[in-house]
Amino acid sequence: MEEIIKKLRKFAAERDWDQFHSPKNLAMALSVEVAELLEHFQWLTEAESRELAPETLGKVREEIGDVQLYLARLADQLGISPLEAALEKLEINRKKYPVDKARGKATKLT
Amino acid sequence: MEEIIKKLRKFAAERDWDQFHSPKNLAMALSVEVAELLEHFQWLTEAESRELAPETLGKVREEIGDVQLYLARLADQLGISPLEAALEKLEINRKKYPVDKARGKATKLT
Amino acid sequence: MEEIIKKLRKFAAERDWDQFHSPKNLAMALSVEVAELLEHFQWLTEAESRELAPETLGKVREEIGDVQLYLARLADQLGISPLEAALEKLEINRKKYPVDKARGKATKLT
Amino acid sequence: MEEIIKKLRKFAAERDWDQFHSPKNLAMALSVEVAELLEHFQWLTEAESRELAPETLGKVREEIGDVQLYLARLADQLGISPLEAALEKLEINRKKYPVDKARGKATKLT
Repeated sequence: MEEIIKKLRKFAAERDWDQFHSPKNLAMALSVEVAELLEHFQWLTEAESRELAPETLGKVREEIGDVQLYLARLADQLGISPLEAALEKLEINRKKYPVDKARGKATKLT
Repeated sequence: MEEIIKKLRKFAAERDWDQFHSPKNLAMALSVEVAELLEHFQWLTEAESRELAPETLGKVREEIGDVQLYLARLADQLGISPLEAALEKLEINRKKYPVDKARGKATKLT
Repeated sequence: MEEIIKKLRKFAAERDWDQFHSPKNLAMALSVEVAELLEHFQWLTEAESRELAPETLGKVREEIGDVQLYLARLADQLGISPLEAALEKLEINRKKYPVDKARGKATKLT
Repeated sequence: MEEIIKKLRKFAAERDWDQFHSPKNLAMALSVEVAELLEHFQWLTEAESRELAPETLGKVREEIGDVQLYLARLADQLGISPLEAALEKLEINRKKYPVDKARGKATKLT
């Protein structure tokens, strides 16, 4: 993750893109990338989505890469570590969805 | 990241949630979490988004955590490493947006 | 639709909200409202989504109302009629997806 | 709106697409279309978004058309009138955001 964040800083600096990378804009761009990921799944059944064709899987992998890049970049602009934030949120979720109450129910993960 | 993925597997298994965690559903949930992040920025100016109040920053941090959790979980269900996918995509982007052509232009990062 | 648009103009003017209603911000808000709609469907099977419980249907109806409001407001700020734009786009889609080629295939509607 | 809804029914029936048009899938597709709209605004300043170039405006108009089409189609599959739902939600919002409290504050429209 640290390598990704450093490379993203260099990538933006070389292209003079910090001016566009406000958290507001990066959150929008993240949202657009997630939709490009979603697009691959919109007409598939759930079962089909569990067994993607190799070509689709390759495209989905690229979109997951894009989403991770924008998320890391947005977090970095706000001084946040995405992995630490994730681990802390998982602890919150653990308390929010106790095993005995959440078992087998389609409630939100987070 | 490996710790997050292992904990998410345990989290879902304990709650019998694998049945709901098809890639299709997880991509939808990821999209919903990104919108909860976006919500904090929708009425802010770009300048305001660069200087969030501590309380807002705390909430944004939680949402970034959620987005990272769902992204990791989705990637894991597809056998993809999100960090490797990100590094590979960054190389693709580097070629797609050469410094001399992309400099100072508000084109897409990815 | 004209009634909606006029009421939205009055609604925003009374609250001095035109300053926040740039097309950029309204597009973000539209995206957030659509995610609130999506949230109701994320863990349902497709079959379940075709037979919503009355309470869920009521909430979904409110979210559809919100999405329509933001879409109308965004279109109005850009001088666009959403219904005319829809009818024209439907003609484009008709040519893009000829019946003989598109029949029974899960391609995009638009 | 009635014309749009009737044409969409015919459009889907001719292509045998009702099988794909579960509310769950249509909500996903709506979300993808909104992101295609959002994409045009992500790197613009708010001021720029108020004065789009004619070419961009034309593309934005098409995306607004697509969003309206999917929204109408989704609502129809659920037996909901999007315009009635919007008018009713506007009344709810009027009470939720009384003029004296909401004036000049960047709270949510809905």
